[in-house]
Amino acid sequence: MRVEIWSDIACPWCYVGKARFEKALEAFPHRDGVEVVHRSFELDPGRAKGDVQPVLAMLSKKYGMSQAQAQAGEENLGAQAAAEGLDYRTRDRDHGNTFDLHRLLHLAKERGRQDELIQIFYRANFAEERSLFSEGDERLVELAVEAGLDADEVRKVLADPTAYADEVRADEREAAELGANGVPFFVLDRKYGVSGAQPAEVFTQALTQAWGNRSPLQLIDQGAADAEACGPDGCAVPQQH
Amino acid sequence: MRVEIWSDIACPWCYVGKARFEKALEAFPHRDGVEVVHRSFELDPGRAKGDVQPVLAMLSKKYGMSQAQAQAGEENLGAQAAAEGLDYRTRDRDHGNTFDLHRLLHLAKERGRQDELIQIFYRANFAEERSLFSEGDERLVELAVEAGLDADEVRKVLADPTAYADEVRADEREAAELGANGVPFFVLDRKYGVSGAQPAEVFTQALTQAWGNRSPLQLIDQGAADAEACGPDGCAVPQQH
Repeated sequence: MRVEIWSDIACPWCYVGKARFEKALEAFPHRDGVEVVHRSFELDPGRAKGDVQPVLAMLSKKYGMSQAQAQAGEENLGAQAAAEGLDYRTRDRDHGNTFDLHRLLHLAKERGRQDELIQIFYRANFAEERSLFSEGDERLVELAVEAGLDADEVRKVLADPTAYADEVRADEREAAELGANGVPFFVLDRKYGVSGAQPAEVFTQALTQAWGNRSPLQLIDQGAADAEACGPDGCAVPQQH
Repeated sequence: MRVEIWSDIACPWCYVGKARFEKALEAFPHRDGVEVVHRSFELDPGRAKGDVQPVLAMLSKKYGMSQAQAQAGEENLGAQAAAEGLDYRTRDRDHGNTFDLHRLLHLAKERGRQDELIQIFYRANFAEERSLFSEGDERLVELAVEAGLDADEVRKVLADPTAYADEVRADEREAAELGANGVPFFVLDRKYGVSGAQPAEVFTQALTQAWGNRSPLQLIDQGAADAEACGPDGCAVPQQH
């Protein structure tokens, strides 16, 4: 069974929702049969690279709320994160474009390091004093190396804005096709969806339901033709074609 | 859409079937939306590592056929392969246990080199004078390096028989659960199956049918609760829990 998670590194509910999903997955009896894949979704794709803003200023400008109201929202998120055992800085985070982060997550996927890198990005963004947006590309190189990637390869990808760009766009197109308007968005075997950072119980229900409804395959063949296949008893050699 | 292909490197119909599938995929209009994953299947799991036999001797002993009959079967396979533009040695190949090959293919998957390695293994086994079974581990290292893997990492995996063993067994368990008794076995979105090296037209039909029947997601949630999610318009902050 496969679970795809659309998310953005700049999305606090994605950070919290991933922990809730993982709590459900850890307790799921068939967890060894579940493969998790991360998919790209940008919350703020129109923002230029290098256009960085403090999170509170961004929130209060975007919603016309006071700094205090924005801060209260962050405190709520901090409490939700803490309830999942996650550190969350409710002050002095900043916000920016995440396209390069997603490109690096696709490189990491190819190198078998995607889960490591997404966790390191989340932690740097939400829990640590290590901005993903204000410190230039070398901060991303530093984090990617912690995830087990090769520094030179990471620099090469960052220097070429077309590298893995198609992969990011393809994920975003698929999100739209699947009806995801926001993230986190969880898709189980392309059959069941969970939208948002739902409680772990909802993920347990989704995993259980998707596992129980793994459907038998519908075989497609050419009717009467012999199957040209090999099995434990040898390879079939059809007599004619 | 995802296509999983269960196969064994020692399986000639897998070699031919992969080429037929790829012909269909190349012509498929939505090919950029198709992800291909290779899964492990051993035709001869009971054979000990190092127990190597010429293919013709193995065939004639296993089926009680004459050397000439076994040779005729190989000639037929060679003709089928040639029709797909593949080289095929109809003489002097050998046969052995493929567990280590599958373990390396799982390493390659993690490093983003699986498709390269499976192609190199097939070519070495069926087309070239480079035995996968008679030359010891260094032959496998040589081929894995050609696929872009790191020699030391490959040697480490070969030296540790538990490395990626669970992944191989999990693939084989899934094949059994899906009803695959032989390979190649193609599974599209866990919904449609194609058994055997069917003609490219059958794969075209399967791809078309699976693409057209990508089903809308069934959303699982907790009913009335607000979704804790972030979208282009910001992050929802539910008022109560």
